[in-house]
Amino acid sequence: MIGARMGPTVTGRVAALLGAFDTTHAAMSLTELARRAELPLTTTHRIVGELARSGLLERDDAGRYRIGLRLWEIASTAARTVDLRDAALPVLQELYAATHENVQLAVLDGTEAVYLERVSGPRAVHIITRAGSRLPVHASGVGLALLAHAPVEVQDEVLAAPLRRFTRYTVTDPRRLRRALADIRRDGYAISDRQIETVSLSVAAPIRDRTGRVVAAVSVVAAAQTDPRQLIAPVRAAATSISRRLPIVTTVDAHSRPAKL
Amino acid sequence: MIGARMGPTVTGRVAALLGAFDTTHAAMSLTELARRAELPLTTTHRIVGELARSGLLERDDAGRYRIGLRLWEIASTAARTVDLRDAALPVLQELYAATHENVQLAVLDGTEAVYLERVSGPRAVHIITRAGSRLPVHASGVGLALLAHAPVEVQDEVLAAPLRRFTRYTVTDPRRLRRALADIRRDGYAISDRQIETVSLSVAAPIRDRTGRVVAAVSVVAAAQTDPRQLIAPVRAAATSISRRLPIVTTVDAHSRPAKL
Repeated sequence: MIGARMGPTVTGRVAALLGAFDTTHAAMSLTELARRAELPLTTTHRIVGELARSGLLERDDAGRYRIGLRLWEIASTAARTVDLRDAALPVLQELYAATHENVQLAVLDGTEAVYLERVSGPRAVHIITRAGSRLPVHASGVGLALLAHAPVEVQDEVLAAPLRRFTRYTVTDPRRLRRALADIRRDGYAISDRQIETVSLSVAAPIRDRTGRVVAAVSVVAAAQTDPRQLIAPVRAAATSISRRLPIVTTVDAHSRPAKL
Repeated sequence: MIGARMGPTVTGRVAALLGAFDTTHAAMSLTELARRAELPLTTTHRIVGELARSGLLERDDAGRYRIGLRLWEIASTAARTVDLRDAALPVLQELYAATHENVQLAVLDGTEAVYLERVSGPRAVHIITRAGSRLPVHASGVGLALLAHAPVEVQDEVLAAPLRRFTRYTVTDPRRLRRALADIRRDGYAISDRQIETVSLSVAAPIRDRTGRVVAAVSVVAAAQTDPRQLIAPVRAAATSISRRLPIVTTVDAHSRPAKL
């Protein structure tokens, strides 16, 4: 499906080949790459060879291809989220140093939350996300904080689709979820209590740009037996602090909706 | 120069366009992009349009293009450095929590150090690098630690080229630098005392894979008046801890040398 949607141009094929890589497909043989991108092996061979010569892909000792350090470097220094991550990182570190729990930063992309940063140490509870991960917005703390402040069209789209039940605590009834979103807007924070994994809960708060628009959310994820009320003040303080540190002219846009690969 | 080296194929043009982005060129108009990639405006227009449709590039309100969240996501989850960053991050957080100084993780790429992670808080000294930054290896703490353990050919190449003088403390004499590298191998750590900026010093130690090969380096960067000796033990302990956390079959390769864009 990845390749078919990209159209028949060479640029589309390059995009299909890059889009074939993800967490569970981080290193692939030419054959695997061709299959995932739905491209002929000869085409794949030719394009991948060129991408490897430019450093965008790299070949390992086993002959498998991976995303190259050069492409990671380009994406790390120039993605539209750089300003946000730069503003947030010191605050996230302090929030981690104060709580020793997982700290996360996420933005909305379409109807999903994309995790930009995760700060966590060896003592923190197990957590499924990391930088670059994507999760539906209806269940996690940051997801709920982002969804509560998303444009109405995005909320309607999320609420109209089937809501995945991660645990028996996940709210999957659209009316209950809509009420929860209203509470989040009123309270200024979101609590996801065992709605992603039964071992953990999270408390999240929205980050706003200078115009007051919500552009991201920050959360602490802690063990399920933690009292979430003790996390509300530090998480909200961190969100306010990050909001103040955002550059005036920001490139941050939580509501961009690029076509999916 | 960027475009000319890529050859005339469409894949080469895509690589040239992506490679045109960096920290100081994070958002560009079509005209700027065409100039940086050395491509005709019509070609740039067509390729950039396709890259934007696939989410690899994004267009901001001002009509300028940036690296898309989708490309950042692919690079973040699938780059060959993922295993290393996953192993290192909790240790880096703890090292930051213990010192409240800048903590860095870097690998060797060709004859340069590429910074994969930087952990720093509001109280840390000013620092010029961030994730995705690149620096020559002869002056910084991580650079020296990496260079000391690099293949002889890499050391010879670095020592044969002119060595940039960042400050009056930067060692630029090849013979002195060669002796410093021998000391680093003997001692197990590197100290860069005001060799990058006069306001800071750094202490670095090598990270090894299961075969004992140095694949990365970790450092603490602190204010120049800090006694570097007090940082040696925590930095070396962190390096050992990260080395132990590396997966047995690692994709980490500090010595890959992709062709430059």
